This record gives sequence, C-alpha cells and structure tokens, in this order.
Amino acid sequence: MFMGKVIGTVWSSVKWPELEGLKLLLVRPYSLGDLGVHADSPAPNDEGVVCADVLGAGIGEDVVIAYGHAARLAVAELLPDGAKPAVPIDAAVVAIVDRYAIAPE
Amino acid sequence: MFMGKVIGTVWSSVKWPELEGLKLLLVRPYSLGDLGVHADSPAPNDEGVVCADVLGAGIGEDVVIAYGHAARLAVAELLPDGAKPAVPIDAAVVAIVDRYAIAPE
Amino acid sequence: MFMGKVIGTVWSSVKWPELEGLKLLLVRPYSLGDLGVHADSPAPNDEGVVCADVLGAGIGEDVVIAYGHAARLAVAELLPDGAKPAVPIDAAVVAIVDRYAIAPE
Amino acid sequence: MFMGKVIGTVWSSVKWPELEGLKLLLVRPYSLGDLGVHADSPAPNDEGVVCADVLGAGIGEDVVIAYGHAARLAVAELLPDGAKPAVPIDAAVVAIVDRYAIAPE
Amino acid sequence: MFMGKVIGTVWSSVKWPELEGLKLLLVRPYSLGDLGVHADSPAPNDEGVVCADVLGAGIGEDVVIAYGHAARLAVAELLPDGAKPAVPIDAAVVAIVDRYAIAPE
Repeated sequence: MFMGKVIGTVWSSVKWPELEGLKLLLVRPYSLGDLGVHADSPAPNDEGVVCADVLGAGIGEDVVIAYGHAARLAVAELLPDGAKPAVPIDAAVVAIVDRYAIAPE
Repeated sequence: MFMGKVIGTVWSSVKWPELEGLKLLLVRPYSLGDLGVHADSPAPNDEGVVCADVLGAGIGEDVVIAYGHAARLAVAELLPDGAKPAVPIDAAVVAIVDRYAIAPE
Repeated sequence: MFMGKVIGTVWSSVKWPELEGLKLLLVRPYSLGDLGVHADSPAPNDEGVVCADVLGAGIGEDVVIAYGHAARLAVAELLPDGAKPAVPIDAAVVAIVDRYAIAPE
Repeated sequence: MFMGKVIGTVWSSVKWPELEGLKLLLVRPYSLGDLGVHADSPAPNDEGVVCADVLGAGIGEDVVIAYGHAARLAVAELLPDGAKPAVPIDAAVVAIVDRYAIAPE
Repeated sequence: MFMGKVIGTVWSSVKWPELEGLKLLLVRPYSLGDLGVHADSPAPNDEGVVCADVLGAGIGEDVVIAYGHAARLAVAELLPDGAKPAVPIDAAVVAIVDRYAIAPE
C-alpha cells in the first residue's frame, strides 16, 4: 500500500456496468521527501493513480491506497448491494489517514 | 488504475485463440505534469502500455486502464460470447474519460 | 520481497472494518547502495511503502516485506480470530531481519 | 501488456519440472521513443524481461508480453499436454506483432 | 521473470511459520547493460530483491526469478512436505541459469 493525497476526480459515461456508482479519484502518491524524511528531496512524484473510493475521501485528504485483489475486496465490502468481487478495478482507498509519524533517523 | 491517451493500435496474426476479436491499443500513461499538476514537469512519460479494448475507445481519447484480474473481468463481461475469465491479457480499458478535474494545490 | 527499514506509523479512523487491529507501518525500502553493495550509490530510495504488521516490528528495525496475496496470507495466519484471507491489504511484514550478508563482488 | 523485441535466449538445467520444454526468451521492452512517439527520446530501455514462449517467436521479432496469471493461462493453453495452470512463470509471449501504427500527436 | 545474480543471504528468527526452512537470498537484477546489450550503460541496477530459494542457488550464480503466484507454486512443489500454496512469499528462484545468448542488434 502507499500513502497519497486526493487531488482530483475522473468522470466517465462509457464504462463497465460494475463501475456505476463508484467514485473515481485521482491520487498523487507521496514520496518520502513529501513526508519530510529527506530534507533535500528534489521533486514531488509525477505519477497519478486512479482509485475507486467508497469511504468518502475528499479532495486534499491523505489516504492509503491498496492495489489488486485488495482493492476489489475493499469495494465489495461496502457497496450497498453486497458482494461484488468481480468489479474491474485494481486500486482503491482502504483508509483515510488521520495522522502519521516519522521517526528521526 | 491510471489515466492515459490512446495513441496507436497493434495487429497480430500469431496469437492466442482467446485474443481473437480483441482490439489491442497502445496507450501512453499521463504523468501528473501532463494533467497540469506541476507546471514545470520536464517530459511526457516514455512507456507505452498495450491494452485490450472492448469499449470502442478511439485514437486520441482519454481512458482509464486497469491491470491484472480486473482487466480480465472487464473483457469477460462485454465479449459477445459471455464469460471468458481465461483470456490471457493483463491490461484493459475499463472507462473512457469524459472529464477530469484537478484541485489547485 | 524486499528488505526495508521501519521509519514510521500511520493512523486512520475511517477505514475498512477488516483493518481494525492491524498496525500500519511506513517502511523505506533499502537500495543496494544502502546495503553497501555500491560504494558510490547516490541517494537513498525516495518511496515509502505502507505495510500491515502483526509480527511486532518496531521503529528502526529491518524487515522483509511481501506484496499481494502473500501479504494477506501472512496477516490471516496470525490474527487472533483465525482465517481472514479477505483483508484488503497488499503489503505486510513477513520477517524481521536478524542479519544479512552481502558477498564481495 | 507491453510490446518488446526478442533479443536473446536463456538456458537452464536446474529448474522446476514444470518449466521443462518451455523456451525462455530475453525481451527488451520498447519505450515510446523506440516506437517513434518522441523524436528526442534519450536512451533505450535498460531492463530486460525473461518470458516463456510457446508461440515460436524468433530473435528480432516484436512481441506482446503479458504478466502474471495471464502468462500462465497463455502457456497452459498451448502446451501439448493440456492444462498446466500451475507452471511457475510470470511472463509470456501472448502475441507476435505483425504491425503497429502510432497516431501523430 | 527477470535474470539476476545472487549476492547475499538474509536471516530472520521472527517470521511466519510457513517460512521456516526456506532460504532467503538477496538478488541483484541484471540491467541490459550488465548483459552487454548497451556498451555505454551507465550504472548497475540499485534495487535488490529478496527471494525464496529451494533450488540451492549459490552466491554469485545467475538465476531467473518469478514473482507472485508463480513464486508460491515454485516453492510449494519442491518443499519436502508437499503442497504449501499458502506460504507468504512473493518472489522465488525458478531456474539457475547455465548460459544466455544476446543477439547483436
């Protein structure tokens, strides 16, 4: 899993039926430099990840993202109509971060 | 999942029977710089992904791509002859993007 | 799998029920330069991984991390209430490192 | 999936029984620069992938490679003795490329 | 899969029961430059992979590594006590390389 910041939203009308009702967020993964580990870190991460969200994460919030089967498990559990392990996604928000602590090295 | 642009097509005559009838697209993943997040982003992403498509995405369109099991689920659902979870692909178009919004940081 | 150092902790109150009771650690993967393989290695790895831990790894300890199904197996085995293969995580501590040896090249 | 060029062969005598009879190829993934997308692309990709092949791809040919479960499906289907979903590989040739077209941007 | 060189060993006493008796090796993946493909390749790969090994690969040997389910299949097959598909690893040695050949480009 990785930690990132919700920076946007993606809308689609032509998509898989299983994706109906799933919000798609754009998340920017944090580098360790973003988290304050290396003071001289050069540039923020330049790759964005599109994630399904059913936890209600908002723009600007910090989230934990899981990939693959874990993402499908996460979405299946909370959708209104029960088990949907077959939803064609590979990334989802599994936690909204309250706080994190980094140990001084 | 990630967002990218359809930039090409790949043709093959020697391939797995399960791949018959599946269009293979070449997609260039967007970096966050491409999406306008970092004004000083240096260069576009240099890696292309070959994806199966049954949604009818056209050249130049923005799409959301999923990997792995999610890709096989996506293709199985919409092929004319029903369930084909055994199709040997690992990437597919799961949504055609209408619009996206990035929050100012 | 990869070897890394535990550098922090992540707390969340809005998360999947299956994640209750699982400690989430922030781990910095070691580069080979960090392990002494290349004397002139430029900079430490700048990506952090969020991992579930049920082995009790502490801040500053070296750990081995596995991804995907392996991570869910690892967590399922040691949780108090038995088999939970459905926990939505994709990375976990599978071993705490006592010692490693690198061969001179 | 990704597109690459077959550049070599790997031989092994100490290997898993399930790998007997499977040809192992070394494939160099194409960057978009290699495919003519960016005229000023700096350097070819420096990572090679070892892939199982049962389609008969030859040195110098362009191929499409799939990872993970897709690779095992691909190999299982064409091996003489039928279903071998348990073969311990994670990459395989799923198509030999006849032709590709890139849209001008 | 990828080809790499065994450069070290990792020991752990606090680990999953399923990992008992499995040797954990540290492997440095080869870049194509290491294999002689690009004469002007800048630097060796700086990421190490921790792999389970039951083939008896020694320090300095060239090996083929598979990830994910393939790694668990590989380990399950050769362990003394039969099927252990549930072992929490995600990388394993699947072949010891005798020889490889790269085609001149």
